[in-house]
Amino acid sequence: MEKLAQVASHARDDARRAIVDAAEKLFREIGFQKTTIGDIAQGLRMSSANVYRFFASKAEINEAVARRLLAEIKMEVAGIARRPASASQRLRACIVAIDDANAQRFLSDRKCHELVETAFNENWIIVREYAQAIDKSLSEIIFEGNRDGEFHVIDCNLAVVLVRTACAQFYHPRMAVECTENAEPTIHQLVDFCLVVLERGL
Amino acid sequence: MEKLAQVASHARDDARRAIVDAAEKLFREIGFQKTTIGDIAQGLRMSSANVYRFFASKAEINEAVARRLLAEIKMEVAGIARRPASASQRLRACIVAIDDANAQRFLSDRKCHELVETAFNENWIIVREYAQAIDKSLSEIIFEGNRDGEFHVIDCNLAVVLVRTACAQFYHPRMAVECTENAEPTIHQLVDFCLVVLERGL
Repeated sequence: MEKLAQVASHARDDARRAIVDAAEKLFREIGFQKTTIGDIAQGLRMSSANVYRFFASKAEINEAVARRLLAEIKMEVAGIARRPASASQRLRACIVAIDDANAQRFLSDRKCHELVETAFNENWIIVREYAQAIDKSLSEIIFEGNRDGEFHVIDCNLAVVLVRTACAQFYHPRMAVECTENAEPTIHQLVDFCLVVLERGL
Repeated sequence: MEKLAQVASHARDDARRAIVDAAEKLFREIGFQKTTIGDIAQGLRMSSANVYRFFASKAEINEAVARRLLAEIKMEVAGIARRPASASQRLRACIVAIDDANAQRFLSDRKCHELVETAFNENWIIVREYAQAIDKSLSEIIFEGNRDGEFHVIDCNLAVVLVRTACAQFYHPRMAVECTENAEPTIHQLVDFCLVVLERGL
């Protein structure tokens, strides 16, 4: 009986994944706003009613695609946090990775960028989960930098919030786009600014 | 002849001011998007054609009202920059004044806030002029802080850009609104963060 439940659960996961795959492809082509449940169902040769068995609404599918796009950045940042490098090098690499991901998506995948921007603008739950995951990686780096005498921070959690806020221009997909025409500060100048505080103490 | 030109110029300024007054009042009541040149003309008991003698388009009137709203903040910040207080106190007071002005406008004058937000979103020329004026005030403070040994900044202009970027959450009318639900960082925590850098050197 348990086995049967497991098989059913796997089948459900596969179906959800196929729906998200199909949706992501359509979002990329025509944008998430123009894509309907009917379009997604048609791409999978199933009925709209069948799609609704796995997602209660189009909004849930939007969320699932956006979550997947953000998961890539989240994973990359988590990987950087665990690299064998100094805390300041890892912190810099994380912020640069986030900025690169935003810039890359904006340049080569404008329609998916719109989805992520909307998610940020409307503060979807998946965005808050993403922000928490990034905070966790930065927090690990700052904690270890402190432990190893590289940083001198009294309140690690506050330091994470401050670094994230100070770097919002490179964090936030919309700000990132708005600020591309500003020559200064560069991302490295802004990271240097934050590192002065972390290294000298806060 | 010169005298006549002067009188004409004054009359022109008065007429423009009356139009901006009337527009601002209507913007406050029904919002800038819904206000037409016809509404503004009617409020002044003049024809739309007459309004067009002074402003080429509705967009120009929008700009004039937004410029006036931002001028208040600009003046206040310029005043703070010249106060007899330490550089760090003046810097803090400037950032707090900008944040207060945004919060105040958002709370008590939502429709004018929308106009300013739109101006920022669309990067109107008046917003760039405003940003330059604020930069100038901050630059004066940082330059004097440096001169008096309170700050240790090598590149004052870069320091201004970095402080402005780090504090974007409190600078930018839209960000300010989005971030009101975040408990941290407070504006004082963020200013402290910036002051560490200015005081210890960049």
